[in-house]
Amino acid sequence: MRIGELSRKTGVPVPTIKYYVREGLLPPGELTSRNQASYGEAHERRLQLIRALLDVGGMKVAAIADVLAAVDDPERPLHKVLGAAADRIGSAHAEHDDAESAAAQDVVADLISRRGWRAHESNPAAADLAKALAAMARLGHGAFTEVLDDYADAAEQVARADLRYVDRQVAVEDRVEGVVVGTVLGEAVFSALRRLAHVDASARLYGTDAPQGRGTG
Amino acid sequence: MRIGELSRKTGVPVPTIKYYVREGLLPPGELTSRNQASYGEAHERRLQLIRALLDVGGMKVAAIADVLAAVDDPERPLHKVLGAAADRIGSAHAEHDDAESAAAQDVVADLISRRGWRAHESNPAAADLAKALAAMARLGHGAFTEVLDDYADAAEQVARADLRYVDRQVAVEDRVEGVVVGTVLGEAVFSALRRLAHVDASARLYGTDAPQGRGTG
Repeated sequence: MRIGELSRKTGVPVPTIKYYVREGLLPPGELTSRNQASYGEAHERRLQLIRALLDVGGMKVAAIADVLAAVDDPERPLHKVLGAAADRIGSAHAEHDDAESAAAQDVVADLISRRGWRAHESNPAAADLAKALAAMARLGHGAFTEVLDDYADAAEQVARADLRYVDRQVAVEDRVEGVVVGTVLGEAVFSALRRLAHVDASARLYGTDAPQGRGTG
Repeated sequence: MRIGELSRKTGVPVPTIKYYVREGLLPPGELTSRNQASYGEAHERRLQLIRALLDVGGMKVAAIADVLAAVDDPERPLHKVLGAAADRIGSAHAEHDDAESAAAQDVVADLISRRGWRAHESNPAAADLAKALAAMARLGHGAFTEVLDDYADAAEQVARADLRYVDRQVAVEDRVEGVVVGTVLGEAVFSALRRLAHVDASARLYGTDAPQGRGTG
């Protein structure tokens, strides 16, 4: 199909499609004449993936380019792509070097060992976890670590569901894409579910009788 | 204390503190002379909260201002503040109006009713959930809804832990702040835990023998 049809089918404006091609997110179309290119279903699908990572996953274009490069590289084992997709979500913020940071790193190392997780404390996710716990401790919410194992139980359950879902995909390229979709969009799904469960739990605990509409209403 | 000491204690530069006061995030100090103001522990604590919401929660200044206004208003019932804090995290992206959107909205309404959640499908979190599921369906991952109840189980568990934690805070102002911290920073904690659990689950499933360091390494 021509670029105009690809644009109509995906709702992505033509200049945006050209930008994605320039940035290496989307492979170029096949040249059918001097200044005309033809696009196929793979382009359509890739555009949908890019839009989902942008709109729902909240990822930046540069981060998406990195993840797609990992998806497209058949040499990369699946768990590395999963790692790359996950690391892209993680934050890169100002480092603190205080007692709370040191204590939070110990809490994370203990958690990983207590749960027998085959993940090293040098993993970026472990660093992000320590950062969040240290920020809580600075706010006087150091006791939050007492519910950490409840959180970890829930995280294990979600991770098992994700892997079970990915494992069902037959073709390897589908599987790799499934990992990316599951990691990034699954994050958005869980975040929304948690907020819904909050509304329910707080309605029960603090006794509002009607179902909640807009939280701010 | 003077603004310089407040800056040293919190690591927030003086011009940034002044900016937060101008934007209404931080109450002004008490004037002790014509051009000198004095700040107390409440200012220090509020600054830590602002930094945590910015750095770890990834919230924008305008969104933080809204949430803090809700925290400071004693007329607002707790579950409304919780709603405001949660809604601020949610995304406001381009709407789609297609078959996938309609189907996803039905899936969400079914889920809320099946689980007996006291949350209305007009809740912003329900809309975000439908958006994420529709994006997955457009990518051919409509079957992801089959693991939705695993996600919902985990979300309930996390929400119960959050509310249990908040409920332990004695003073109401601590409780309100606890809700904001738990909602925003708890999100960052769970996201990091899920990524760690992924590393573990995929290492077990796809057989890497050594603990994983950097996912991209």
